[in-house]
Amino acid sequence: MAGYDPDNVFAKILRGDLPCHRVYQDERTLAFMDIMPRADGHVLVIPKEPARTILDVSPEGLAATIASVQRVARAVKAAMGADGLTIQQFNESAGGQVVFHLHFHIIPRMEGVAMRPHSGAMAPNDRLAELAQTISRAII
Amino acid sequence: MAGYDPDNVFAKILRGDLPCHRVYQDERTLAFMDIMPRADGHVLVIPKEPARTILDVSPEGLAATIASVQRVARAVKAAMGADGLTIQQFNESAGGQVVFHLHFHIIPRMEGVAMRPHSGAMAPNDRLAELAQTISRAII
Repeated sequence: MAGYDPDNVFAKILRGDLPCHRVYQDERTLAFMDIMPRADGHVLVIPKEPARTILDVSPEGLAATIASVQRVARAVKAAMGADGLTIQQFNESAGGQVVFHLHFHIIPRMEGVAMRPHSGAMAPNDRLAELAQTISRAII
Repeated sequence: MAGYDPDNVFAKILRGDLPCHRVYQDERTLAFMDIMPRADGHVLVIPKEPARTILDVSPEGLAATIASVQRVARAVKAAMGADGLTIQQFNESAGGQVVFHLHFHIIPRMEGVAMRPHSGAMAPNDRLAELAQTISRAII
């Protein structure tokens, strides 16, 4: 397993070198819209510490991240009126990882509606901004 | 969202009313082989407390569960010689959930090998027992 690349896209977002549609943040974690959503309201939650996968994150960072996943998941479900949620976390290319900073996907699901394929299609910026605002307002 | 059904299959496993191929347990969590594995070495991690989804588990139960996911994931990767890991957590039927007790899937992945489909096919009992032993020995 390779180490942590400080120039990965999420590291750049954490440094403020790249923008994101922020949904939530606290001392240890950040949540923002996936720009290639598999469903409307698809959010990513990441630790602020440099961690490549679930295998190398600190226990404290992991606990904070899953607490934020729970908090944001409740907001996603409420804000999107979702019937369910699919949570995914990919480690290494073989595991489906594309950006090499630990992240959890929260994908709202509606009964009978398949996730969109990994097409690489980016959602419109204004739509992501609107969803980020809707979801962030639902955070308790 | 419906409540917790104390007669779900994982509740029965926790009570000892149904067997499982145990990989790991501690005070708050249990890990065991998925009997319908999407890859050899597919393990489930659950909290011992009654929780239907990630939305209703206690903060302490969730923190303990993700700590066990990390610990077991390291063992799965090492024991199976996996290139990566796919971690999934499904909430409600629309989200992909089949057993209504919170669980995390840990699926070892090899480069270029797709996960097996959800066929409902059960793995041979002796193969699961062997894998449980191999993975449990790799837990640190």
